[in-house]
Amino acid sequence: MDRCIYFDNAGTTQMLPEVLDEMMPYFLEKYGNPSSIHDLGSDAAAAVRLGRKRVAKALGCYSSEITFTSGGTESDNIALIGTAGREGRNRIVTTATEHSAVLETCIHLKKQGFEVDVVKVHPDGTLDMDDLNRKMGDDVSLLSVMTANNVIGTIQNIRECSRIAHENGALFHTDAVQGFTKTDVDVRKNGIDLLSISGHKIHGPKGIGALYVREGLDINPITFGGGQERGLRPSTENVPGIVGLGKASEMAMATMESDVRKMTEIRDTIIESVLEIEGSALNGTAESRLCNNAHFRFDGVRGTDLVLRLSSKGIMASTASACSAGDTEPSHVLSAIGLNVDQALSALRITLSHLNTVEDAEYLAEVLPSIVKECRQ
Amino acid sequence: MDRCIYFDNAGTTQMLPEVLDEMMPYFLEKYGNPSSIHDLGSDAAAAVRLGRKRVAKALGCYSSEITFTSGGTESDNIALIGTAGREGRNRIVTTATEHSAVLETCIHLKKQGFEVDVVKVHPDGTLDMDDLNRKMGDDVSLLSVMTANNVIGTIQNIRECSRIAHENGALFHTDAVQGFTKTDVDVRKNGIDLLSISGHKIHGPKGIGALYVREGLDINPITFGGGQERGLRPSTENVPGIVGLGKASEMAMATMESDVRKMTEIRDTIIESVLEIEGSALNGTAESRLCNNAHFRFDGVRGTDLVLRLSSKGIMASTASACSAGDTEPSHVLSAIGLNVDQALSALRITLSHLNTVEDAEYLAEVLPSIVKECRQ
Repeated sequence: MDRCIYFDNAGTTQMLPEVLDEMMPYFLEKYGNPSSIHDLGSDAAAAVRLGRKRVAKALGCYSSEITFTSGGTESDNIALIGTAGREGRNRIVTTATEHSAVLETCIHLKKQGFEVDVVKVHPDGTLDMDDLNRKMGDDVSLLSVMTANNVIGTIQNIRECSRIAHENGALFHTDAVQGFTKTDVDVRKNGIDLLSISGHKIHGPKGIGALYVREGLDINPITFGGGQERGLRPSTENVPGIVGLGKASEMAMATMESDVRKMTEIRDTIIESVLEIEGSALNGTAESRLCNNAHFRFDGVRGTDLVLRLSSKGIMASTASACSAGDTEPSHVLSAIGLNVDQALSALRITLSHLNTVEDAEYLAEVLPSIVKECRQ
Repeated sequence: MDRCIYFDNAGTTQMLPEVLDEMMPYFLEKYGNPSSIHDLGSDAAAAVRLGRKRVAKALGCYSSEITFTSGGTESDNIALIGTAGREGRNRIVTTATEHSAVLETCIHLKKQGFEVDVVKVHPDGTLDMDDLNRKMGDDVSLLSVMTANNVIGTIQNIRECSRIAHENGALFHTDAVQGFTKTDVDVRKNGIDLLSISGHKIHGPKGIGALYVREGLDINPITFGGGQERGLRPSTENVPGIVGLGKASEMAMATMESDVRKMTEIRDTIIESVLEIEGSALNGTAESRLCNNAHFRFDGVRGTDLVLRLSSKGIMASTASACSAGDTEPSHVLSAIGLNVDQALSALRITLSHLNTVEDAEYLAEVLPSIVKECRQ
């Protein structure tokens, strides 16, 4: 069995050959340090400039508003730690279904003496806006709400969230690691002050990400060194990574509309066929849902068992979140939407990319019912 | 003129084709997230394990003592911030010629309420051991001394430094970004508690580095998230980067002896020929010097002018430190060894790799005298 159907695109994505092609010269030939003033250095600096321009265009902002980081986790950390205590405001507001890069950073900031309030979500994963409004106030420095959830795919109304944040004089950050290239994250239209993205979630390289910081907003670095990235993120620039992130962003935005349409169709085919299995249910909302996410639970099944059996059939899927290692704890996201431990541990996450086909969905529909049956025995 | 002689290996190095070959499968084929439990995830996790094993072997430690980071700067930051205030000890001791990743982090820690003492160096760049002994004490949490200097190439006696640190109950950290693969950094032999390395300085990829943390030593993370790298450095692992760092470490260690011999010969040829130019001098020490570093000053010359003219002849060199961008400030290292501003700004740094040849040195000897003359006009 050499079939490999990759349904774990919220975990990581396959890099596109065009992205690798663009990166290649910067490994063996144009390998200079962008800080060097000789010709090889200038070539590298030009590549970084182009990468920055492409990412900026994809987010609808200026190049000068983009800071390259090592990935989504670091971007989230800089956004949260770098704004904590701003203007004497001591409180951070976030949500119960954020990625651990946000929630664990909040726990750290709590230990440092900051206050953190966590907004509830409805059973479908959408934010409880009443609870949000209750928890905001003029002592809040930052509201952080993810664009779309990595586990259940719920898309939040970030435009409304940013409005509420600003109404309270707070900054608005969104972790757009899952949402970028799949839903509208234009920073101006949505009134975003800080936004995190990651390369490897959009068919770009691992080890690279970016943080958008609105012009005029001065935030604190969390690492210190040689002054790169205007001092906000020092370290020799990861030139091939930046080139790859730029190319991947540009490519994804160019075909976003048709890709989203394609993924939505495949997703709906999958949801329809899986829900025919007895004792199955969809987690999250049917409406405000990422085009590439289908997240299920199955009565009397262990999700890890399901994933391993699918893998042996050439289907790569996940239970809850590939980000939290070989975790056997139920995902905090599934607890937040009200699932009990058994329900949470019975989860299967199917996440698509534009590289998936209807045939992939058909193969899943073919093999899943008997696998679920096996798991139940 | 298509000639390209690369003499800026302290800035960054050319990646080796063998390193890229090893990385390639992890871009387009084995692109899984090491945290995923399906087959593609397991393949990626195995690659991370092999990379870790190779880096550990090169440093003489266990795999479990290696934490992957985004580079030398981040490794230094974790080492310093992650141990600050340890056991109620409030003071950090470091040296005047450290990389900005250490010195700027110390400035940050000072603002956080920690004390920092900076040990003087002799005019040849070696550490003033009397001053070190004077500054140590039982309130010191960490002594950080770089293995070898990135500007003038001076190698410090890290074994003696670690002995002094431990005598005072302090931890010993060394920034081995320049020293690794060029001088002995075996962590057991040298009694090292924490050590930083970078991929792109040893013919590996940019955007990857590692921090060695001695077994049993528990330090604090500076970023927070999904629990990767035993919680010390969360983020989806940069699989191709880790593979590349592992391969580059293994390759460099396999030929270290002969490479060091070769670079030493070329370096000495360069030093001899350059010092024939009137009004030239060598910065740093002739004895305890990195095999690949030759750092000069020239009366009445601007170093940047020299570097740009050399670049137009196909020779890529540097003034002081490519890490600190298009900097026009004199390097703090050159001030620390007692050079005045004019002397510091007249610097030329030639840094070799094992890919350089005697012919490269001869070409430099051929063109440099007239370039220096032009610069003086």
